[in-house]
Amino acid sequence: MSAARNDAPIGIFDSGMGGLTVMRALMAQLPRECFIYLGDTARLPYGTKSGETVSRYAVQAAGALMRRRVKLIVVACNTASAVALPALEAAFAPVPVIGVVEPGAAAAISAAPRGPIAILATESTVRGGAYVRAIQALNRDAEIVQQACPLFVPLAEDGLIDGPIAELVAERYLAPLFAQDAARPQCVVLGCTHFPVLERVIARVVGQHVPLVDSAVTTAQAVAHLLAEKNLARGGTAPAPPLFLATDAPERFARVGRIFLGREIPADKVEFVDLQAG
Amino acid sequence: MSAARNDAPIGIFDSGMGGLTVMRALMAQLPRECFIYLGDTARLPYGTKSGETVSRYAVQAAGALMRRRVKLIVVACNTASAVALPALEAAFAPVPVIGVVEPGAAAAISAAPRGPIAILATESTVRGGAYVRAIQALNRDAEIVQQACPLFVPLAEDGLIDGPIAELVAERYLAPLFAQDAARPQCVVLGCTHFPVLERVIARVVGQHVPLVDSAVTTAQAVAHLLAEKNLARGGTAPAPPLFLATDAPERFARVGRIFLGREIPADKVEFVDLQAG
Repeated sequence: MSAARNDAPIGIFDSGMGGLTVMRALMAQLPRECFIYLGDTARLPYGTKSGETVSRYAVQAAGALMRRRVKLIVVACNTASAVALPALEAAFAPVPVIGVVEPGAAAAISAAPRGPIAILATESTVRGGAYVRAIQALNRDAEIVQQACPLFVPLAEDGLIDGPIAELVAERYLAPLFAQDAARPQCVVLGCTHFPVLERVIARVVGQHVPLVDSAVTTAQAVAHLLAEKNLARGGTAPAPPLFLATDAPERFARVGRIFLGREIPADKVEFVDLQAG
Repeated sequence: MSAARNDAPIGIFDSGMGGLTVMRALMAQLPRECFIYLGDTARLPYGTKSGETVSRYAVQAAGALMRRRVKLIVVACNTASAVALPALEAAFAPVPVIGVVEPGAAAAISAAPRGPIAILATESTVRGGAYVRAIQALNRDAEIVQQACPLFVPLAEDGLIDGPIAELVAERYLAPLFAQDAARPQCVVLGCTHFPVLERVIARVVGQHVPLVDSAVTTAQAVAHLLAEKNLARGGTAPAPPLFLATDAPERFARVGRIFLGREIPADKVEFVDLQAG
């Protein structure tokens, strides 16, 4: 392992800005690493698109990170993690690729070993069933219920993360899952990177005692583990500040992105990148 | 003017399915014409993207319609009408291109000649100011107020067009505009093709006496006028049933599209088309 390789940044991509919740967890978990984040904002959302389209977009996004010589790729998008991992691994081996679905599934099983586990996600993640497969690979008998929550994404992007509108939408999606005492979920997976910013309102609807699994945190732990295992961790000096790439409107990326990253994003740290020309 | 040219279909495109409200008005206004509709669903929404990106996408979308030999192009998308008309006219002359902004502006001025006129639209239409310019070209002194309503789009696509969530969102956007008696808007422009399906809830918030300008209807009238003027109208026999093209997930297009078209869309009438390869 060369020091140059260990010093290389970790690449993260998402369809937009939601994956910044994963980056936030990674920066907290791995304070010595450098990060490059790509948001494919020209083509978001991925969550309503077909698996073939999402795979093609994901390979283009990861390709732009590879050209910046990243040492590891984090797919900080549930939709892309659910459908594009095989295509990404095939395209970029031996660079490791890690998604958010498997760490989220593992955390759900440890929070509620027998279920019922409720998966909240976008339409296409629900339709693809990736969380169901990942959880059943760990426990074939776990009871699982899925709920598509498409309005959570624009609510989060609009900063409407609290108040009566967010609460009514959360009730609309979640109340039916929790209506029957016998089958009440024992754990809720926030299966879309936008959803952690709505955590408070979701907790209020499902009850404070039901654990919410935020795959951002468990993915950060999985990345730390992988870096150690492959001897890829960066040591020594302070890391460079993170760099951001957006396929559209860098100014909007900086403005909306801070809701998800939880800190300011300087507009001059967001570069425009054109994936179709890449 | 050859009969073959008059028999050619009218091409309509939008970022997604909202433009079907324009197609609905066109089919009612022009029952003898044939129509091809393209929804760029792989890249929707346009409303949060930059003008350059929207122009590029619009030229690709219209290009796919041109390959089907359309006689006229209707830009059934406010965002694309606001930024891409010059690029489209340059690319496809002498085929006429007509957008939804100018007919909407004309209808607003005739409903409320001196204003105040309220424009409800997507973020990028508001930022681009196309309605303001189009209205001021008709009356330089008209008072205009703009309001971005980004959540109306996913509400409409999710079929949440009535009930308490839609009402709270409408109140959040509209109540501040109507709070001051002196400057109350005398007319509201539904400046996004998704918004007409939310008409009832909007009317309830702004008051039934305030006219809502739906640019779908006024655009259909403008198209009828243009066909007559250019001697391009189709006569005679019954038209072929409409054809639909989608850049992603034809099944979802058929299912969600009927909310906007107001009639069933047979799944086998929706063809997949890849614009990037085109």
